[in-house]
Amino acid sequence: MTPPVRFAVWGVDHLHAFSMVGLLAAAGGEFAAFHSGDGPLSDGFAKTFSGARRVEDPRSLLEDDSIGLVACAAIPDQRAHIAEQALRHGKHCLVDKPGAISLGELERLRTVQRETGRRWVVFFSERFVSPATVRAGELVQSGAIGRPVHVLGVGPHRLGLAPRPDWFFRPERAGGILADLGSHQADQFLYFSDADAAEVVAAQTANRAHPEHASFEDVGEMLLRSASASGYARVDWFTPDGLDTWGDVRLSVVGTEGTLEVRKNCDPAGREGGEHLFLIDRKETRHLDCRAHPLPFAAALLADVAQGTESAVGQEHVFLASELALRAQALAHATRPDGRKAG
Amino acid sequence: MTPPVRFAVWGVDHLHAFSMVGLLAAAGGEFAAFHSGDGPLSDGFAKTFSGARRVEDPRSLLEDDSIGLVACAAIPDQRAHIAEQALRHGKHCLVDKPGAISLGELERLRTVQRETGRRWVVFFSERFVSPATVRAGELVQSGAIGRPVHVLGVGPHRLGLAPRPDWFFRPERAGGILADLGSHQADQFLYFSDADAAEVVAAQTANRAHPEHASFEDVGEMLLRSASASGYARVDWFTPDGLDTWGDVRLSVVGTEGTLEVRKNCDPAGREGGEHLFLIDRKETRHLDCRAHPLPFAAALLADVAQGTESAVGQEHVFLASELALRAQALAHATRPDGRKAG
Repeated sequence: MTPPVRFAVWGVDHLHAFSMVGLLAAAGGEFAAFHSGDGPLSDGFAKTFSGARRVEDPRSLLEDDSIGLVACAAIPDQRAHIAEQALRHGKHCLVDKPGAISLGELERLRTVQRETGRRWVVFFSERFVSPATVRAGELVQSGAIGRPVHVLGVGPHRLGLAPRPDWFFRPERAGGILADLGSHQADQFLYFSDADAAEVVAAQTANRAHPEHASFEDVGEMLLRSASASGYARVDWFTPDGLDTWGDVRLSVVGTEGTLEVRKNCDPAGREGGEHLFLIDRKETRHLDCRAHPLPFAAALLADVAQGTESAVGQEHVFLASELALRAQALAHATRPDGRKAG
Repeated sequence: MTPPVRFAVWGVDHLHAFSMVGLLAAAGGEFAAFHSGDGPLSDGFAKTFSGARRVEDPRSLLEDDSIGLVACAAIPDQRAHIAEQALRHGKHCLVDKPGAISLGELERLRTVQRETGRRWVVFFSERFVSPATVRAGELVQSGAIGRPVHVLGVGPHRLGLAPRPDWFFRPERAGGILADLGSHQADQFLYFSDADAAEVVAAQTANRAHPEHASFEDVGEMLLRSASASGYARVDWFTPDGLDTWGDVRLSVVGTEGTLEVRKNCDPAGREGGEHLFLIDRKETRHLDCRAHPLPFAAALLADVAQGTESAVGQEHVFLASELALRAQALAHATRPDGRKAG
């Protein structure tokens, strides 16, 4: 038996800190210690994970050789710096999205990753922890819909779900809606179209209903293209109160011999629960309940940390997905009709 | 009692000729006569509507003063010319989409329409004859989802549904996928976002799986923007054989206080039939079965013909929707990465 991978958390400014810890612990990781500022989630996090040591100085995480992995859900404009320190200290890093908020940060992370040989993994939760999305990926890879030619993602989110501190509404700190929510979409486009290169054809963002936060973007969209497929994604903060989950997130893939649709969180006015997969091929139309489908991500990541493998997600894929989202964000800012720029 | 509006058909190269006649007749119009070439649908059409006179020379339709309206489902590259002749002879014209296949044709039709004062109406069937879409429009106009900020349309179609003669695969005759299928989407974007002006932000088309028809486009998409909303549409010819209808056509509208989704033709692996409307507002999530919702289009159009009103659809809206689709098509051709141009 190899000893469990010990991991730490640096930064608890997004609820994903809770889910990252939960997933890693369930997969056999040992949550050793964490550092966080005085954000509104910190005390609840300390109470929830009372077995982990809370440290005042993050250097004590970096200098603890027993820790192999640092998970980070700090404010987005701190994440690249935290990841760099983790990698420079020989740790791997799992960072909430967006893992970087500018192309400059990302370029620096590429250098650091190359120099250290450690893994920099962005937590693309809308794929990694969605059983229906994982199953959809397996089906596409097995040829169930022929060659994928189009990937469409829609990611509405509820604004009032979590405490939203001031930084959340400021793209220069949070990254902008395409860098943030759009990074899930970029990940999915590349993954489902099996692309190792892609371009942003167009992107736009807007603030349609939140004038009190002038630079906030409540909707964003991007049109993408790879050699063999195209894709589109819209993300927004308009989930209505009358929906019983945070967002009716969908993914549709068109293939040459079939199509599929994932309804990740709910089937509005339809079936119970989430993780619905609808598959239409040459023969029939089927609904697949994927709630019990396994999620390999966390165990694979821990194995990667322990063994130096690259099984949870490809390193270059993570960089490319992040880059696509950041390029879309930059393009949207550069072409925003109202001239309001973020950051 | 006013006498019924008498109408004729010129061109039976698309199945929509049947549905236009059926709708107009059901709304009280009198199908007087038709002219068509020797396309594969002509004989079946003559048999189906044996009460109407088939004429060899279309001039006998134009010169029949009892005919107030000419419906046209000719090959797309003939439609603008047919409509011009109808309008010049004092008739109104209902034309299958695309009503024109170039911006030049459209400009000429604008002039003719202005000079004659007759109506040039494109048969945007994915709205006009979809009860759930009509109901969605009424709900949006009543404020059920607040201000609309985004309109998303997906229009997959089955390639093998109808006889597909050679011209169908040639964009220089059929118009291209965005001019054709995309015109429904342009109509819906303008209608649901209540816009009287819009621009094409980006558009692309591709031939992903039909190399035997080099210039054919099997997928197309466009990103649109108006003053108060943005929109996206994808259209394609990839409906899989395992779906029990010609296409899982969807429309989603995001508003500031709610969202709605229309599943026009089917609810895959779900409820029976089509015309499903899903409405989520501040209070709840509901499914509305719209199959029995009335379709006012045909009766309104006949009233417009009889009384000179503009109730079925706005004339400027029809031109603008057609223009948007044609602009998207032109942009897609100009930027197509493989360099293959159409027409």
